[in-house]
Amino acid sequence: MMRFRLTVEYDGRPFQGWQRQGHGRSVQQAIEDALFSICGEKTEVVAAGRTDAGVHGSAMPAHVEIERPFTPFRLMEALNARLKPQPVSILECAEAPGWHARFDCIQRRYIYRIINRRAPLALAAGMAWRVPAPLDADAMHAAAQRLVGRHDFTTFRSAQCQANSPLRTLDRLDVRREGDELLVFAAARSFLHHQVRSMVGCLKLVGQGKWSSDDLAAALAARDRAALGINAPPDGLCFVGASYPDLSVGFTLP
Amino acid sequence: MMRFRLTVEYDGRPFQGWQRQGHGRSVQQAIEDALFSICGEKTEVVAAGRTDAGVHGSAMPAHVEIERPFTPFRLMEALNARLKPQPVSILECAEAPGWHARFDCIQRRYIYRIINRRAPLALAAGMAWRVPAPLDADAMHAAAQRLVGRHDFTTFRSAQCQANSPLRTLDRLDVRREGDELLVFAAARSFLHHQVRSMVGCLKLVGQGKWSSDDLAAALAARDRAALGINAPPDGLCFVGASYPDLSVGFTLP
Repeated sequence: MMRFRLTVEYDGRPFQGWQRQGHGRSVQQAIEDALFSICGEKTEVVAAGRTDAGVHGSAMPAHVEIERPFTPFRLMEALNARLKPQPVSILECAEAPGWHARFDCIQRRYIYRIINRRAPLALAAGMAWRVPAPLDADAMHAAAQRLVGRHDFTTFRSAQCQANSPLRTLDRLDVRREGDELLVFAAARSFLHHQVRSMVGCLKLVGQGKWSSDDLAAALAARDRAALGINAPPDGLCFVGASYPDLSVGFTLP
Repeated sequence: MMRFRLTVEYDGRPFQGWQRQGHGRSVQQAIEDALFSICGEKTEVVAAGRTDAGVHGSAMPAHVEIERPFTPFRLMEALNARLKPQPVSILECAEAPGWHARFDCIQRRYIYRIINRRAPLALAAGMAWRVPAPLDADAMHAAAQRLVGRHDFTTFRSAQCQANSPLRTLDRLDVRREGDELLVFAAARSFLHHQVRSMVGCLKLVGQGKWSSDDLAAALAARDRAALGINAPPDGLCFVGASYPDLSVGFTLP
């Protein structure tokens, strides 16, 4: 039995999310089906994060255990050949005995992409949130700092969230503008279900001037889902990287 | 009769190219059909460039003349409403009496995007050229400078090219690497048919070490299509901007 570490890129649009479910296609199922057709083994693919329907991944770490001997290169090539034409690609494959993609992860990183313009999205349809109202990225960044640190994030947690505790430590929440795009970078050891999208939704209200920085802090302090402004759509969200004690995968901020 | 300047963004994948043709969908036809349904007028949309099937546009200038009075804002809104769900979006609309999108243009700009990795493209499928062999971007940039200036570009011209002369002045041809992406920026008053894709195809051979800088210069000097290395696929190409005597549209290099 050998354990392999995979880095997975996927376009979330055609999927019901990362996790295998009773209905619909999932990224996990796509990879497990590819493995079964290669090895004849039914095995579980364990990922650092479980993204929702329509959310993308540019560097999702995952692990898998198989009996049949493979070099990492051959396993990656075989998986990519079987995954076609689905928009799922194995970017890296390495032997990783004892390594756990989920439990060993000490930081998850997301980028949320907003396109701040009136015109519909032709090139980035499904890959960004279009916000027509002018957004003040500096005000959003300043307000975002009120969420950084260890807090009870109940306000920013979906009703379906299965985590035992609403306490999370947000390492970074940065907002910067590049032309008509706003990029929101979020990093934490772990996130609650819908936490990034809920934070981005409220930051959008700050960017529009509908909420002040204090309103955002008050929403956090309320520890009440009813205090949530709005939830951002999945389109703009992408899992971009993760860290482990001796390993960093994908994108990181300097 | 009022002339309007439009800036158009489009995803080239579902189209036979910019230009209206006997068969298949074109971006031009999509906009002309939208105008007809808004004004009941059959009118021609004239663009700065006529991109091929599968080539994208992030800021294509175009003009159109209509009889029915419209404010630019209302025309843009009406066009975008009618263009849905096609991946064509009008980013800007302004009154432009006497302005000609094609004849007045003094610089066209393209970016060609290469993703230099072995794994298939999940997120950028159809939007970049995947090249598995490692590419030396510095060598490509250095060689590219041999093409800059006024030359007979017959080698880099398709058999279908309708231009009277193969002489063109290439203003810029820059190659730079950002992680596993290579971006090729090309700017000229005008280009021959397939010129950017042909230049990028040959630069790829330089990046792989199959061609030297001198080989590229020799191919140019041969003035013979048979001397062409390879043509890059349309996927990676995007029309990103254009200049006019008193106006710059879209992306420009500093």
